[in-house]
Parts: sequence; structure tokens; C-alpha cells
Amino acid sequence: MAEKKIRVTVWNEYRHERNVPEVAEIYPKGIHGCIAEFLSECGDLEIRTATLDEPDNGIPDEVLDNTDVLIWWGHIAHAEVADDRVEYIKNRVYNGGMGFIGCHSAHHSKPFREIVGATGNLSWGDEMHEIMWNMKPSHPIAAGIPDHFHLDMEELYAEPFYIPNPDDIVFGSWYESGHIFRAGCTFTRGVGKIFYFQPGHETRKSFYNPYVRQIIKNAVHWTAPNDFGYEIKNEAPRVDSVVEE
Amino acid sequence: MAEKKIRVTVWNEYRHERNVPEVAEIYPKGIHGCIAEFLSECGDLEIRTATLDEPDNGIPDEVLDNTDVLIWWGHIAHAEVADDRVEYIKNRVYNGGMGFIGCHSAHHSKPFREIVGATGNLSWGDEMHEIMWNMKPSHPIAAGIPDHFHLDMEELYAEPFYIPNPDDIVFGSWYESGHIFRAGCTFTRGVGKIFYFQPGHETRKSFYNPYVRQIIKNAVHWTAPNDFGYEIKNEAPRVDSVVEE
Amino acid sequence: MAEKKIRVTVWNEYRHERNVPEVAEIYPKGIHGCIAEFLSECGDLEIRTATLDEPDNGIPDEVLDNTDVLIWWGHIAHAEVADDRVEYIKNRVYNGGMGFIGCHSAHHSKPFREIVGATGNLSWGDEMHEIMWNMKPSHPIAAGIPDHFHLDMEELYAEPFYIPNPDDIVFGSWYESGHIFRAGCTFTRGVGKIFYFQPGHETRKSFYNPYVRQIIKNAVHWTAPNDFGYEIKNEAPRVDSVVEE
Amino acid sequence: MAEKKIRVTVWNEYRHERNVPEVAEIYPKGIHGCIAEFLSECGDLEIRTATLDEPDNGIPDEVLDNTDVLIWWGHIAHAEVADDRVEYIKNRVYNGGMGFIGCHSAHHSKPFREIVGATGNLSWGDEMHEIMWNMKPSHPIAAGIPDHFHLDMEELYAEPFYIPNPDDIVFGSWYESGHIFRAGCTFTRGVGKIFYFQPGHETRKSFYNPYVRQIIKNAVHWTAPNDFGYEIKNEAPRVDSVVEE
Repeated sequence: MAEKKIRVTVWNEYRHERNVPEVAEIYPKGIHGCIAEFLSECGDLEIRTATLDEPDNGIPDEVLDNTDVLIWWGHIAHAEVADDRVEYIKNRVYNGGMGFIGCHSAHHSKPFREIVGATGNLSWGDEMHEIMWNMKPSHPIAAGIPDHFHLDMEELYAEPFYIPNPDDIVFGSWYESGHIFRAGCTFTRGVGKIFYFQPGHETRKSFYNPYVRQIIKNAVHWTAPNDFGYEIKNEAPRVDSVVEE
Repeated sequence: MAEKKIRVTVWNEYRHERNVPEVAEIYPKGIHGCIAEFLSECGDLEIRTATLDEPDNGIPDEVLDNTDVLIWWGHIAHAEVADDRVEYIKNRVYNGGMGFIGCHSAHHSKPFREIVGATGNLSWGDEMHEIMWNMKPSHPIAAGIPDHFHLDMEELYAEPFYIPNPDDIVFGSWYESGHIFRAGCTFTRGVGKIFYFQPGHETRKSFYNPYVRQIIKNAVHWTAPNDFGYEIKNEAPRVDSVVEE
Repeated sequence: MAEKKIRVTVWNEYRHERNVPEVAEIYPKGIHGCIAEFLSECGDLEIRTATLDEPDNGIPDEVLDNTDVLIWWGHIAHAEVADDRVEYIKNRVYNGGMGFIGCHSAHHSKPFREIVGATGNLSWGDEMHEIMWNMKPSHPIAAGIPDHFHLDMEELYAEPFYIPNPDDIVFGSWYESGHIFRAGCTFTRGVGKIFYFQPGHETRKSFYNPYVRQIIKNAVHWTAPNDFGYEIKNEAPRVDSVVEE
Repeated sequence: MAEKKIRVTVWNEYRHERNVPEVAEIYPKGIHGCIAEFLSECGDLEIRTATLDEPDNGIPDEVLDNTDVLIWWGHIAHAEVADDRVEYIKNRVYNGGMGFIGCHSAHHSKPFREIVGATGNLSWGDEMHEIMWNMKPSHPIAAGIPDHFHLDMEELYAEPFYIPNPDDIVFGSWYESGHIFRAGCTFTRGVGKIFYFQPGHETRKSFYNPYVRQIIKNAVHWTAPNDFGYEIKNEAPRVDSVVEE
């Protein structure tokens, strides 16, 4: 059976990699390039990348209209993302079922905050040792992931994390500084599915970690939209009785 | 023990009552006046009202800063609510813990949509008989409410209702047209609590129904902010290790 | 890619079909036979059936040990299911990730009550017209299902339904008697996934309805266990520090 | 206004305190005595205690029938709690709305497991430093609690914790061993409310910690049953149409 491929767009701010040699060394093709590369190991994805400084932030309407899952990495330039792009993304998630995967500092990105309904505020600090705990092994995003794994160093992201109750908290993280974090969370908004995942600081190699990669692959498949059995429209229709139809 | 009173602001669009004699007859003091009046039966509330056509939509910063629970009724003039008021309300809910109670067509109001993260789309239709089912009798908002009660006539609001999974679905409704609806739903966003409740069409007397009144009284008490044990700020602070503190 | 097949066991009380000619006419091979037959349209399932009056209620340890998803239909003989079978099922769900799909009056079955933690009490009544609403189109169990569909006649199952908050309420139902019902609900318990679905009264043809069939097919795929990344054991292990591992 | 008092029963296994001098020194009146004592600082509670070795485990029917909130501490003698007491407790929670607060090793107690529907399995280890994080400051149980506080030493309880998704995760904990834990969780089952809270190892002074005390006081008020607006019965009644009533 020739399944339709999931169309993934990997969006990256792509500033650190061009301005900071240390980052360029870790992610020579950009973080987007790294993510796109390991995702290509899945046979069922059609992958493209997009970056902030491209026209329309790399995500004009026609790209988003043909995206099933949008992966987002942003950090220092959240404010530069055009508001009309954020609105279009939100509409695609709410009414089109486009999946959204927010990586790392995407917790403070406009799309994440607008889609989920959150400030995304958290506490943050130095890079340090992080241990990731699998808190929902039955979730498809946790498939194949052990009960815990280590990230040598990551940026500290910590509670209190100001998000609504997630549908599922799949991963939680521990830091040597005494902090904990809801590190892997799912949400549904409109007819779209959202996954937020903590790892991915630009100066660290989390995107080379095999478990991080597996989790993102799983998340792409989980956030991809269902085949809806009716047309989802952004409207509030007037309806008549359905009893005798 | 002299408990601090809960400061409630009842906000109303207040257009129908001034323009439609039929509505004016049912709600001679406005829907806000009716709600404020029955809420005054609770001894522990400090109640004020506010309407769209007042300066700053009746809710300047100093009013919102001194509001613990904001009740919202709007219908035909959602678009006229100033965006900066919506932002201020959202901030008060997210970071101040202000409660928000959306009545009836508030499902499509800017504050509800922005706070919850939803289009609020639903199907709607003629006024008809509605039966309200108590689906979570253990919830404080359901205190004293029977397993079901009748509303002679209400405007049809129906599934699919495009909202995120509520924290609790307290009430569900039945309509003779073959439709159902998640009619009473709670959400938490930031440190604020939200309750949406379906009844309240301007041409009908739902706000005179004793159970509707009890539910709104309960909801005011439930959505009122906790005494927070630390200062909630709209920021993402840098933090150091807390292990040795 | 040769995916491993999902091993489904369709369990049926199988009393009505043998004792009531009217039921036998609708389900000549038993309700289990009907469900097994339409499930066989999926190419990726390995299906067996089991019934109450077989030795060990048709589900000895070795059958349950080799079952990925257990579908359950019971009605008048809940009490005759052996307690040790219930315990074994519960253990398989909690610690083995076996999926459990409860059909219709399974709401009162021992396994459903024990697994979910519920009395499963509800109100019930005559057979009548039912309309099923799709309340979570983004859920895999709702894939391909329209916003609503009709069941000519079903037994009335109604709120208040005494269950814990489901993880997702996928379907809700309307009855001409003024009642509503959380008709399609998901739960997770231990590492297992559970789906309860209302239709399936023995004197009615709901299991011939194409949407009901699609939903059960979807549910089999959704409740099937993940590939766990570590061994799930029914124990509370003593552990040492993992910081330096 | 003379509110009806909340009737609290503090149940304790009461073995360690009688057999281990070190424990007796910390809790000379038993853990139940300590909890009862600090709860008595609330003016609105009517408190009694009960212990395992009393007749009927100290909780005959008439005690449970007159208990609004049952606090449970057990550890080495879970198996000695009579099954009929567990059933009676479960029925009181499900159908009477009795609140249940499980302290510390109550995660493995028969009542907790039976009520919630969980093995309650977790990982555990040495006593060590614990930091408790407030993850839901808007929850009434978190009222007055800072964003985090320290417990000098507690027994390690760690993820994976095999419980269903809680309604709310109010507290999360960090341990110096690299582990995290959902340390304060709410559930609703039937018409009853449940709170599980991690601290309380018998060799440590957590029940003297002012925040732990505040949290348990808050939890007593939160888990106390609502005034139900109709009679909750443990039955599945046959019903007729309610449309014309």
C-alpha cells in the first residue's frame, strides 16, 4: 500500500549558525539541516526546510498549505517573525490539522504561545547535565525510548513552566541545579496536534542524540493530521434539525 | 473571620437591551444588571458592572487590576472590543490569576478565544428546548445542581465545538434538534481559571433560572484566584542552582 | 515492510445469540463472529474469538499473553466471568500494554470497572434513535468519521455516566428521550490504552453500521501497544543514583 | 455563618512508631497523632484518628459513613488491611464523595490502587534531599505555597510512576540522585476527589514542615465532598424520556 507521505517543513531561525563559529561547527548545515537529515531516515516523509530570513520567513501561504507538520526552532529573533505568518500557522493548526513541533526555545516563540494559549514563561539557566525521564511509555511519541536517558549538557529550562495542562506529559527532565521540567508535552488545539520538546540548545549536540532523534521522528508521525471524515471549516454555521435527516 | 470579598466585574456588550424592545423587557437593567443583581445575593462579593460603549470599554486598567473575576457577555459587537483591552484581560488572567466566566456567545468573543486558544467555532440554530445535564457532580461549580434541569428555550449551540480539551466538562446539553453541546467547561490558563457556560440568549430568560444563577455563583467562587504563595511575574527569569539554598 | 500483525481477541458473552432467536437472526455467528469478520477486512490483524462458556472463559493465560487488543462484549452474565481472568486481564493492560475495547454494556463488565476504576453506572432505557457526534476529529479513532451519523435504534445509555475524566471524549451521543452520553471515551491505565464505545445492543444492527465498524477498526489500531523501549515490570524496584551512570 | 464542619479521619498503620524507637521519637503520638494535631489548627474540621490494629482496622462502617475526608498512611502492612474495608472505602469515595488523601507509601496501599485504578508502582531508594516544585499555583491545594521548597531528607520516590494521567499535577519533586516524581497529584473517581502526596517517610520530619502541613490542610478542604444537588446512588437506573417532564 503506497501511503501518502507526510509533508514536513523544518523551520529554523538560522542566525546563531551564521554568526557564532562554535554553533556553526556543531550544525554546519544549520539546525534545520541537521533535523531534515535525520528525518530523511524515515522513508515516509517529504521534507523541506525554511528559515527566518527568506521571503515571508520561508513560509509563504503555499508552503504552509502543503505542510502536514511544522517543526519550529527559534531563539533570539522571535519578534522578527511576521505576525501574519503566525496567524496563518495558527489557522493551519486549528482548522487544517497541521501538526506543530516546538523545539527548545520555541516555548517563547509567537506560534507556540498563540497556538497553545500560554506565555510559555519558564526559568532558565546555565548549560548543565540533564536527565530525561519517560513518563508515558504508552504514548506513541515514547515508542522505543528507555525509562530515562542522559543529555550531557543542555540549557536549563525549569518549572514553573506556564503552560496549560498538557494532554499528556510524555517526558520530564532533571537538572543538577535542583530543577525539574515538563520537557515533552502534547496539546491539541482546533484539529491540530502539538508537541513541545525541551532539548536543542544551539551550542550542544542534542540533535545528534539518538533518543532525541527517535522522539522527533515519533512526534512527526503523531502530530501529522488525521484523515478527517468531513471538511473542517473556520466558521460557525447555522444548522437545522438533524433528527429527520 | 472577615474574608476578603471577591471583586467581580460583570461586563456586557449592552446593545440588544437598548435597541430591541423585546430584550429590554426581559432585561430592563441590561443583562449585566440582572447578573449583578442575583450575584448580590452572595454576601461575599463586591460587584461592579461595565459595558462596551463606556470609555475603554468600561474596563480601563485600574478596573481590571481590581477585578478578581470578570464575567463576559457579548454577541454582535465582538469586533468592537479594543485589542488592547483584550491583551490586558489576557495578561490579568495568565499572570494575575483573574477568573474569566464566558456566558453564551462569549464563545466567539476576543477574550475567550485569545485566553483559551480556540476559534470557539460551533454550530448554532433556532431557539428551542434545552436540557442541561450535570456531568461532574463532584465539581464545585455543580454544587447543589440536580442531575439535569430544563431551559424552556435557548439558542441552539452545538457540537462540533472547537475548543481544547477542557480540564473538566461540568455540564452537557441536549437540544430537540438532535444536537448536543459541551455546555459548561473549565479551563486553566497561566494562573487563571476560566469557565464557559452556554445559557444566556438575550431573548430568553435563562438568567432568571435558579440553577443557572446557582451555577454562575458557584463559578464566581471557583474562578476567583488563589492566594498565591509567591509573586507571579510575566517573565522568564534566569536562575541559579537551588540545591544549596 | 512486513509489519508485525496486531493480535486481536474478540471476546463475547455469547448467550443472547444462543437463547434469543431474534438476536440469532441478526448475529448468526455471534456478535464476536460479526466483529471478527469485519475486522478481517484490515490486512494487518490476526484475529481470534473467545466466549464465556469456553474453558477459562475462553481466555486462558496463554491467549491473553498473546493478545495485543482485547475487545469485550458482555451483558447479562458479567458476574460469571471468573475473577482470576479479570485480574489477569487487568495485569495485561496495566503492565503489558494490552489494549482493551469495551463495547456497549461492557461499561458494567468486571474488566472495564476494574481497569478504569469506575462503577460504570449510567442511566439506561428503551431502544430509540441515537445520533453520534464526532467531538474530537483530530483523534486517530475518529479518522474518516463525519461530524455526526445516525443509528436507527440503540439502547439508551445516558448521563450521568460514572467514569473518571476520560483522556479524550471522541464521541458523544444524543437520544430522542432528552438524554446525552459520553459515547466514545479513551483512557490510559498502566501502559495500556482503553476505548469504551456505546453502540452494540444485541437486538440492533449497530455492528453492521459502516461508521461503527470504522471506529472499532481505528480503535484496534489506537489501543494496540507501543513498542516499549524498556521492559515494563509489575514491581517497585529499589534504585540507586543515576547521575553518574 | 456556621458552616458544617468537615469530618476528617486520619488513618495510620501505626506499626513503625510502636516498634522502632527512632520513629517513636519523631512521632511520639504516631503519625496520625501528628497529622491530627496540626489539622486541629483549622477551625472548621472535626478530626478523629484510626489505626490498623483496632477492630475493623479502626474504620467500621459507621466511622466511614461519617467521614468526609480519609487521610491514609500505610507502609509495611498494606496486605493486612481487610478487603471489605477497602471495598467500603472505595464505595464511599465513588458513591458518597468521600475525599481520600494518600500520604507517601499509600501509593501502594490497597485503597489507593483500587480507587484510582493503578498499580502505584514506582522506583524508590535511599533517603536524600528533595526539592518540591509548585507546578500548578492556581490549584487550591497550592494556595500559599511558594514556587519551591526543600525537604532536608525524604525517601526517594521516582518515575516511572505507574498512575493514570492525574487531573492535575500540583507538585513535582527533584532528588539529588537524578530522579524526578509527580509528587502531588489529584484525581476524581466517581463523585470523590483524591490527592496523593509524596512526603511523609516515618524516619523523617516532613509532617513538621510548614508547607507540607499547609498542603495537607488545603487538600482536606479541596477533597471534601460538595453538596450534591441530587442523591448519588450506586445503581444504573432505568429511565424514561425526560423531554416532557
